[in-house]
Amino acid sequence: MTQHDTLILTASCASRLGTVDAVTGYLREQSCYVADMQTFDDARAGHFFIRAEFRKPENGDFDEAAFRDGFSPRAAEFGMQWELTERSRKPNVVIMVSKFDHCLNDLLYRYRTGQLAIEIPAIISNHPDLQRLADWHHIPYYHLPVTAETKAEQEAKIWQIVQESKADLVVLARYMQVLSPELCNQLAGWAINIHHSLLPGFKGAQPYHQAYAKGVKLVGATAHYINNELDEGPIITQGIQTVDHSHYPEDLVAKGRDVECITLAKAIQYHIEKRVFMYQGKTVVLGS
Amino acid sequence: MTQHDTLILTASCASRLGTVDAVTGYLREQSCYVADMQTFDDARAGHFFIRAEFRKPENGDFDEAAFRDGFSPRAAEFGMQWELTERSRKPNVVIMVSKFDHCLNDLLYRYRTGQLAIEIPAIISNHPDLQRLADWHHIPYYHLPVTAETKAEQEAKIWQIVQESKADLVVLARYMQVLSPELCNQLAGWAINIHHSLLPGFKGAQPYHQAYAKGVKLVGATAHYINNELDEGPIITQGIQTVDHSHYPEDLVAKGRDVECITLAKAIQYHIEKRVFMYQGKTVVLGS
Amino acid sequence: MTQHDTLILTASCASRLGTVDAVTGYLREQSCYVADMQTFDDARAGHFFIRAEFRKPENGDFDEAAFRDGFSPRAAEFGMQWELTERSRKPNVVIMVSKFDHCLNDLLYRYRTGQLAIEIPAIISNHPDLQRLADWHHIPYYHLPVTAETKAEQEAKIWQIVQESKADLVVLARYMQVLSPELCNQLAGWAINIHHSLLPGFKGAQPYHQAYAKGVKLVGATAHYINNELDEGPIITQGIQTVDHSHYPEDLVAKGRDVECITLAKAIQYHIEKRVFMYQGKTVVLGS
Amino acid sequence: MTQHDTLILTASCASRLGTVDAVTGYLREQSCYVADMQTFDDARAGHFFIRAEFRKPENGDFDEAAFRDGFSPRAAEFGMQWELTERSRKPNVVIMVSKFDHCLNDLLYRYRTGQLAIEIPAIISNHPDLQRLADWHHIPYYHLPVTAETKAEQEAKIWQIVQESKADLVVLARYMQVLSPELCNQLAGWAINIHHSLLPGFKGAQPYHQAYAKGVKLVGATAHYINNELDEGPIITQGIQTVDHSHYPEDLVAKGRDVECITLAKAIQYHIEKRVFMYQGKTVVLGS
Repeated sequence: MTQHDTLILTASCASRLGTVDAVTGYLREQSCYVADMQTFDDARAGHFFIRAEFRKPENGDFDEAAFRDGFSPRAAEFGMQWELTERSRKPNVVIMVSKFDHCLNDLLYRYRTGQLAIEIPAIISNHPDLQRLADWHHIPYYHLPVTAETKAEQEAKIWQIVQESKADLVVLARYMQVLSPELCNQLAGWAINIHHSLLPGFKGAQPYHQAYAKGVKLVGATAHYINNELDEGPIITQGIQTVDHSHYPEDLVAKGRDVECITLAKAIQYHIEKRVFMYQGKTVVLGS
Repeated sequence: MTQHDTLILTASCASRLGTVDAVTGYLREQSCYVADMQTFDDARAGHFFIRAEFRKPENGDFDEAAFRDGFSPRAAEFGMQWELTERSRKPNVVIMVSKFDHCLNDLLYRYRTGQLAIEIPAIISNHPDLQRLADWHHIPYYHLPVTAETKAEQEAKIWQIVQESKADLVVLARYMQVLSPELCNQLAGWAINIHHSLLPGFKGAQPYHQAYAKGVKLVGATAHYINNELDEGPIITQGIQTVDHSHYPEDLVAKGRDVECITLAKAIQYHIEKRVFMYQGKTVVLGS
Repeated sequence: MTQHDTLILTASCASRLGTVDAVTGYLREQSCYVADMQTFDDARAGHFFIRAEFRKPENGDFDEAAFRDGFSPRAAEFGMQWELTERSRKPNVVIMVSKFDHCLNDLLYRYRTGQLAIEIPAIISNHPDLQRLADWHHIPYYHLPVTAETKAEQEAKIWQIVQESKADLVVLARYMQVLSPELCNQLAGWAINIHHSLLPGFKGAQPYHQAYAKGVKLVGATAHYINNELDEGPIITQGIQTVDHSHYPEDLVAKGRDVECITLAKAIQYHIEKRVFMYQGKTVVLGS
Repeated sequence: MTQHDTLILTASCASRLGTVDAVTGYLREQSCYVADMQTFDDARAGHFFIRAEFRKPENGDFDEAAFRDGFSPRAAEFGMQWELTERSRKPNVVIMVSKFDHCLNDLLYRYRTGQLAIEIPAIISNHPDLQRLADWHHIPYYHLPVTAETKAEQEAKIWQIVQESKADLVVLARYMQVLSPELCNQLAGWAINIHHSLLPGFKGAQPYHQAYAKGVKLVGATAHYINNELDEGPIITQGIQTVDHSHYPEDLVAKGRDVECITLAKAIQYHIEKRVFMYQGKTVVLGS
């Protein structure tokens, strides 16, 4: 079998007897083989999460629309929010950058070697600097400069490109502009930002300079979903790097690059593999 | 609800349509709430593994024997090997040591504070040194000295204590004797050893001295099940510690202690939580 | 040679040509062999730090007082703050605890096995719970209960014990009381606290509960010197532990124990090996 | 001051009174400011190592040839092997690759952004695949296919390119050919290889497949100098990645990429910063 035969079903709902069986029983009826499954039951909140990877029946007799129609009433019975995704479908990811190119370079490497199974219909930047890198990968590069006066207009263009690209995900790969509340709202929950600190420590501008001033012995990176508060969205994953007294802010900037790249790539991987559920301002990440 | 209401069902069998449903469907029928579940399907070997934590019905109407009787034929249909365990039952763990006490001290701390939910009916040693530590914890200490001539006899006594203690698990917490093939066979798969190297590197005696001679920049520890080959049993978990040129063998010994303790404790935790499956000389560890 | 022949000389001063030579030249004159040396020059602040381990002359001809007298004028020339310590001298460490015993248990283990080359003249607690553990190690245990009304009096007793113990270092091994500004001032720079978060994140009470609420994917521990602001003193070292959505606050508490123990022990080790310099609210840690 | 004013002096010799002073005293005489210094004294082997970064006199009065001439007799007195390097001089690094491009891509990124202060006069490969990547960075790419019959001839060409490039260092960035003893001898000690396992575990071909077969829970990468035994040269640094039962060999290959890249880049950084001393088949790495 190949990835083309594999689908991912994710669901969440209030905890109640029978939630797992609602999913697994249906998959059994449809003759779908469960290749990988994890659940999480939040006993405090009384909420349930499930992720199942399954293979279509071996006889080839699988109709996705019919599958959805069949599952809908069962999900409704439990008040489930659910999603069904082809494992092999590559989501459209729009990447936003400024001048720092390490995360972009890393994502493009993973993209062109297939490690990250995505399409990149557009790269958007407020600076022209990374055009050549985009060109080499044959990806359209949109240079949208921004000033306080033109911000509304620039963000409107961003939103237009995101829509026209049929983006499934937006990635802020060190995009150094604060988004307006409007754009934050539009992107909330389906845009991932990489922040170069261990949030909630060192929010806002120049976190490595803040870390230097404080004399910490560890710096880190946090990949999180955008919401309408700066650097406050649900955290997906975090990584760290040890440092010492000999690292000036510019050294921390350099030291942090690798962990930023790896943390962002990991978060995108979790997202596109449908492992991440947002819930109460936090995330549940199944099977990571 | 409490842990007293929770059970763990683990099962494995050849991969086949319906394996998950055989478990989850039955739990649904029995009105048991699935609190946590993971599966793994080894596509290469065609083998399936499942671990489910579930709560007894809220009406209190649960009969374990009846539950077992009901599940047996379904499991048999799939050729499943399965186990049912009360979450709150504390397994009997017999600990074997020599003179090094760091792992024993660590395990006893976790035992007396309840972090490690075990009973320790016996500590066995070929040296008298750690008697006082055992006494302080009110645990019977068996000093069984051993020489080449008395080895068979000594091991017979070990085996007797293990049996009389109704041990569910034997832990070799830096027991510095090579076990005979007979005892290895008796303990295969239910005794955990901590070896102070990243196996398969540096098997056998004095791994830290081997590591020093080789000039490695990382040392580690491996917790594995005993089988009939020295330091070759299925690996449960491994931990590491960075080192450098300034560490002489005795420094590596000191540096490695923490990671040995943590690695061994983690392996025992996985084992008693029924997360570990042995298969083809390796382990599957679900939900670690 | 043994540790009895080894001394540690540490010094710091404003950066200026000749600082290293002032130390190394003198050691050469005194026929002392430099076994280990590190320097750090803070180019931003223009400040210099040096730590040298050296062995007394092989002919046994070493007079510590004369050595000090000889070095004093040279150090004065550079405005050096300096310290000379016998490597083999075990400092007196007073430990303060409340009810949580994991750090105390860990420190006592390292103490009784000699891994941590210290004397422990006193354990002070605001609770009686850990008396038995202290007794087993033959260490005086001072139970000093505290209320808002008796705080001044209780702290006066603490200070008295610290002084009578000729303490070189005070360790707050999960002492769950906020010290008064007076006691903080008295202990500033020679008391080490372990805080169970990655400072400056999650200061104050219940950091694991704060971490849970925020949904972080890493928790950590910070060992720092006490100063007159809560959880704001110079950081010595930090450690981390990965966590996920399944960890409730009480799980984080459990998960964090090992990293708290290791982080605190490491900070004490650095301190007693004279590796730590406090400077501008931060630390320089040489040769860690 | 800038890096242009900074030099690195490294030296090693048999342990003897006065070794440090021989270096620091001379630097003082020459009015050179010591910005960073570390020493290591191998008490077992009786061998001493020192690395000092220093700044030229502020009056600009520095003659490198005269400096060398002045230091030579002092070094000779102690039998020192020593080296003097301009901090700002970019060494020539020839990179050898086959088809896997992750390490090359990573090194080229660090090269073009200046993180790795090197020149790359040539990339040599036994396959044509990575030509385009080299072209984009304007680096000459030498495609030298190899068969058992042509190996001697191909290696002669490699050697010629290495010499004509005035290479200071050769990096085998996943070059998948075993070098002949002759070429190994020519490159011994100044060629760095990245091996995708934690040596000495899993030497030779397909280490990830070996790791899979063994069921290890950690994989890693080792950067080491080439010598005349396969995968046996002095280890510079090692990195690790945790894995589990769900990772097939091809997953380990994917998982290991990041740690291979980072480990290799770190080793090159140590090497060009003159931190690495080879000694008795191992390395001393100062100030890492």
